[in-house]
Amino acid sequence: MLNTNIETLAFESVPSRGSRFGTLQMIDQTYLPTELKIIDCCDVETVWEAIFMLRVRGAPAIGIAAAYGVCLGLQTLPADADMDTFRNRLNEVADYLASSRPTAVNLFWALDRMKAKAKTLYNTNNVKTIRDALLNEAKIIHEEDRSICRTIGRLGQKLIQDGSTWLTHCNAGGLGTADYGTALGVFFAAQESGKTIHVYADETRPLLQGARLTAWELMQRGIDVTLICDSMAAWVMRQGKIDGVLVGADRIAANGDTANKIGTYGVAVAAKAHGVPFYVAAPASTFDLTLSEGSGIPIEERSAEEICEGFGKRTAPLGVKVYNPAFDVTPSDLISGIVTDRGIISPVNRQNVERMLHTGVGCV
Amino acid sequence: MLNTNIETLAFESVPSRGSRFGTLQMIDQTYLPTELKIIDCCDVETVWEAIFMLRVRGAPAIGIAAAYGVCLGLQTLPADADMDTFRNRLNEVADYLASSRPTAVNLFWALDRMKAKAKTLYNTNNVKTIRDALLNEAKIIHEEDRSICRTIGRLGQKLIQDGSTWLTHCNAGGLGTADYGTALGVFFAAQESGKTIHVYADETRPLLQGARLTAWELMQRGIDVTLICDSMAAWVMRQGKIDGVLVGADRIAANGDTANKIGTYGVAVAAKAHGVPFYVAAPASTFDLTLSEGSGIPIEERSAEEICEGFGKRTAPLGVKVYNPAFDVTPSDLISGIVTDRGIISPVNRQNVERMLHTGVGCV
Repeated sequence: MLNTNIETLAFESVPSRGSRFGTLQMIDQTYLPTELKIIDCCDVETVWEAIFMLRVRGAPAIGIAAAYGVCLGLQTLPADADMDTFRNRLNEVADYLASSRPTAVNLFWALDRMKAKAKTLYNTNNVKTIRDALLNEAKIIHEEDRSICRTIGRLGQKLIQDGSTWLTHCNAGGLGTADYGTALGVFFAAQESGKTIHVYADETRPLLQGARLTAWELMQRGIDVTLICDSMAAWVMRQGKIDGVLVGADRIAANGDTANKIGTYGVAVAAKAHGVPFYVAAPASTFDLTLSEGSGIPIEERSAEEICEGFGKRTAPLGVKVYNPAFDVTPSDLISGIVTDRGIISPVNRQNVERMLHTGVGCV
Repeated sequence: MLNTNIETLAFESVPSRGSRFGTLQMIDQTYLPTELKIIDCCDVETVWEAIFMLRVRGAPAIGIAAAYGVCLGLQTLPADADMDTFRNRLNEVADYLASSRPTAVNLFWALDRMKAKAKTLYNTNNVKTIRDALLNEAKIIHEEDRSICRTIGRLGQKLIQDGSTWLTHCNAGGLGTADYGTALGVFFAAQESGKTIHVYADETRPLLQGARLTAWELMQRGIDVTLICDSMAAWVMRQGKIDGVLVGADRIAANGDTANKIGTYGVAVAAKAHGVPFYVAAPASTFDLTLSEGSGIPIEERSAEEICEGFGKRTAPLGVKVYNPAFDVTPSDLISGIVTDRGIISPVNRQNVERMLHTGVGCV
């Protein structure tokens, strides 16, 4: 099964041929669905570029890549470096990786976790000890995400009726996580539990993650998928074709407002208008409790070229003004529930988010 | 000014070099915005192919092209053909052209008008007389559309406040009509009357008429335009950036339900959710009173390739199932007003549509 390969290939830190340094291997998602190409990351710069260029994408996957990226960035330090040098280099590497994708809270979460781990070990005064511990921490983050995906899938699949039809936007699948994904993980778990489902996948302009990645993953696992343009989502709902919407998330504020790929908000507005339930699936690490509400989430704006010449051909006049926000924020009142690895938050509000994150109590 | 060239180049039936037959010249819109290429149509087959392949598109432009297409299709008849032969050939040509684009009511309207004109002249028993009269009729249809665009612009621009920002979807501009368009004509008329406006143009997947054509036309005329992906429309409304939406129409039912390019319905749903007025601009000929409501409008489904490899690059897995409706239907209750060449219908309902079409009374 190809997704098993994905699990194996993504984020394995293995000694590379003829090098004393480890290598992080990842699928270069920009080549999918026509080519399965692997990137060997031997240094932190390659990881930064891969995150920035969306070769690796999806909030959990970015976090995992960044954790391994920290390890790669520390490899070049001499084994007898003093702790001040180590700390400076670690901060430098972490700050650098943090600049690759400003909206992805998992990025910061993973980097903070790596720094916190290092902090507990500076008293050893031993570069090798801390480096080994950090590689181990990256592997734990990686392994935890596999487990989180499975838990989200197991909890979320209860929402899925046998024979139902769902719509998803962007890609919250195995390519964006360590395992089989968050939103797509719910579909895969439903399938594993014997349910037959049909999924409409928004192509997700400008970078077409839905067409390139989601359609590919669903086909790989034999789920009946129909590709549509983003502009068709409201119309298929109007035709009564959609029983529910399920998407991933890049960052969720304390009140449940959810930043996800641009277009998610429009889908949520359409779902509300048609009485279609709208769910989000994301690990607890996606919540950023320092943000009271979604208006505080910074929205990354990306280059005009993604819209004007994304298909290998110029499709808009030269010099045209372009607005290209990479994310939007769906307010919690449009969200029927958030499936996390600690339970399903529903209704979505500040109290239920807080209860779930702190105790796991008070959730469905 | 380039749009003057558009007016001149589009639909002129001129004697072609070294041929006894006239030629219809049109911009091949599939090459825009990177190339301004003209098609010479010497026969009805070329016109059919141009309509089918969207080389010429936009409801009024299709009607005009079809009217000239009838003339081209009759050119090969011998001057001494009898009237039965003439009538058969005319019906054959009209049926053939009618098959090029099933949703465009202007196509049928123009073909019916050409047939009705011929019917009044069969008693002349003279091929040349009828052919001349039909070419003249096509020119009248062409000229009428210029006048309609100007009237729609003049009436519609009253809705536009100086300094306001509008959103449009697809292309309802000069490339789709004989003059400067319907929805875009309203913007151009507002500009002519001294108002400064800003327009957000949806790129309009799958064929990117917004990116390729609307952005180009607005830039040509110096209107401040920002290109966005379709999935961003709801988000820019949420941010308070949009004062109103104005789109064209392909077919309008007796109750005001409006078929237009796929994605229009989603924009209308989003506009409603944000309290943004949503207007349609279309000539009276776009109304199809044989259809009581929008559910009766046939929706053309187009090929999967438009979505999967529309711009010279495969962007979805081979063999993926695709749903590609070319149009959707916006119910009249989401439409604030319909700007026609006979007045603005508002509120949009069966009574006001009927009154406007029959008397021009009862409208704004």
